[in-house]
Amino acid sequence: MTVDTKAQEKLLANVLATFEHAPSPRLREIIEAGIRHMFAFVEEVELTQAEWMAGIQFLTAVGKFSTDARQEMILLSDVTGVSSLVEMLNYKGEAGATENTVLGPFYIPGGKPRQNGDSIIETDDPGPRLRVSGHVRSQNGAPIKGATLEIWETATNGFYPVQDDHQDPQNLRGTLTTDQNGYFEFLTVRPVPYPVPVDGPVGDFMRATGRHPMRAAHIHFVVNAAGHYPVQTHVFDSESDYLDSDAVFGVRDSLILEFKEGSNGELSTTFDITLTPLG
Amino acid sequence: MTVDTKAQEKLLANVLATFEHAPSPRLREIIEAGIRHMFAFVEEVELTQAEWMAGIQFLTAVGKFSTDARQEMILLSDVTGVSSLVEMLNYKGEAGATENTVLGPFYIPGGKPRQNGDSIIETDDPGPRLRVSGHVRSQNGAPIKGATLEIWETATNGFYPVQDDHQDPQNLRGTLTTDQNGYFEFLTVRPVPYPVPVDGPVGDFMRATGRHPMRAAHIHFVVNAAGHYPVQTHVFDSESDYLDSDAVFGVRDSLILEFKEGSNGELSTTFDITLTPLG
Repeated sequence: MTVDTKAQEKLLANVLATFEHAPSPRLREIIEAGIRHMFAFVEEVELTQAEWMAGIQFLTAVGKFSTDARQEMILLSDVTGVSSLVEMLNYKGEAGATENTVLGPFYIPGGKPRQNGDSIIETDDPGPRLRVSGHVRSQNGAPIKGATLEIWETATNGFYPVQDDHQDPQNLRGTLTTDQNGYFEFLTVRPVPYPVPVDGPVGDFMRATGRHPMRAAHIHFVVNAAGHYPVQTHVFDSESDYLDSDAVFGVRDSLILEFKEGSNGELSTTFDITLTPLG
Repeated sequence: MTVDTKAQEKLLANVLATFEHAPSPRLREIIEAGIRHMFAFVEEVELTQAEWMAGIQFLTAVGKFSTDARQEMILLSDVTGVSSLVEMLNYKGEAGATENTVLGPFYIPGGKPRQNGDSIIETDDPGPRLRVSGHVRSQNGAPIKGATLEIWETATNGFYPVQDDHQDPQNLRGTLTTDQNGYFEFLTVRPVPYPVPVDGPVGDFMRATGRHPMRAAHIHFVVNAAGHYPVQTHVFDSESDYLDSDAVFGVRDSLILEFKEGSNGELSTTFDITLTPLG
C-alpha cells in the first residue's frame, strides 16, 4: 500500500473547502469536525475496500431496522458509549452534584403520583422488597421541599410495563414529591440485570465482538426542583453483575449503592441527591 | 456545561474494555479506533443532545433510503470524500504510476470490444467529438502490449446508458486492447459535468450545507495488464467546471488533461498510463 500523506491532506482540504458556504456556522463546524475525525479513523486503520463496504452495509442495515418503536441507530450509539458521553457532556450539574446518566428508551412522563412511603408495586412480583429513601438537597446543603422524583424500573422478569401485558401500566413507576425536609421514600423490588434488544444488526455486532447485552441492575430517576438544574440518573445495586461492563455504559461509581437487609426481611438503601442551582 | 475530562476518559476506557474478547483482532482494532475517533469528535464539538438526535435521524434516513439500485450510504461516503480516501489508501500503484480514483456506481464489466481508432458513439449525440489516445507503459518505460482499457462516460445529456432508455446499452463504453507499442485510441464525445442524485437525504445534506452536486467532466478507465497492478481512474477535462469541488472528490491534478482542437474540428488529448509491476 502506497501511503501518500500529501495527497490525503489535499483531499481532506478539498472536502472541507466545499462547506465554506454552509449557511449555519455550527452545522459547518460539526460536519467539518466529523469528516476530519472520519479521515483520521480511516487512515489510522488503513481501512480496506472490503471493510469499508462491510461498514456501509452495517450502517445501512441499522437504519433499515429502525422504527418509531425500536430505534436501532440509538441502540448503536448506546452500546458504543456515545449516548453516555453526550449525556455527560451536556449535564449542567456542577462538581458535587449527583452524577447523571443515560435516560434510556423507557422513560414515560407523568407517572402516577405516589405518597412518601408508598409501595410502587402494582403487580405481583416474586422479587425481594427494597425500600429506597433519601434527601434532595441544594449544593449548599439546604433541603429542597417539593422536588419531584420520577421513578421507573423493570419487574423481576426484566421487563418494563410497556414491554409486558401482564403488568399494570403503572407498575414499578410513579412520581414522588419531597417533604419539607427534602425527604422521599418508596417501596419497590430489587432491580435485576436485563438485556438490551439483540434481535437486530446491533445484536449481530455485539455477538461478533464478544460483547454481552446486559445492563447492570438499576432504578431510573428524573429529579426536578424549582431553581435547580434537573438530573436524570440511576441507582445501581452494588451486588449486581455487569457494573464494569454495562451494555450502555450508564454506570457511575457515585451511583452504586449498597442494599442492606433489615430485620423485617426488607432491603433498604439511601440515595441522597444534590442539585445545582440554576445560573 | 461541566467538562469532566477524567470521567470521559474512564467512560472511553470502559467502552474499549468490553471489546477485549472480540474473536477477530482486526475487527477489534477497527471498532476500537472508530469509537476513539467518535469520542474525540463528540468532545471536540461538544455535541448537544438535539444535535446528536439530528445525527441519529439523518443516518437512519440514509439507511432507510438505500436500495440495491441506489445506495445512499455509499453516496454519503462519496460526497464526504471518504470513498476517495479509501481508494487512495488501497491503491497498489507506486509513486510515478498513474493515479487512481473512485470507481463510481456506473461500472459494468464486459464492455463491447473496440478496435483501436474506433468511435464508441453508438447513439446520436450533439456533443463535440474528442479523440483520446495514449500508451500504456510499465514503470520502467517499457510499452505494454495487450493491456485492456475499459472505458465509460455519460452522453452529452449527462446520463449513462443504464439511466437513459434512448441510448444504446453500449453507447460511450467499450473495451480497448493496446497494440504491440502499447498504443490505444478511440473517438468519443467531450465529457460534461453531471449531478450526483440529490432526491434523498444526502441531497438534503448537500443543500443544507451549501454544496453543489456536480461532478467535474470526466471519462472513466479501468486498465488491466498481465504482471501489473490494475488502475481505476478518470481523465478530466481541464476546461470543466467543478475541478476544485467535484462532488465526490475524484479529481487528481495528474489526471486533468487539455483537450486541443484540431483542423478537422475534432478535439484530441493524450492520456499516457503507467502501471506498477506486481510484487
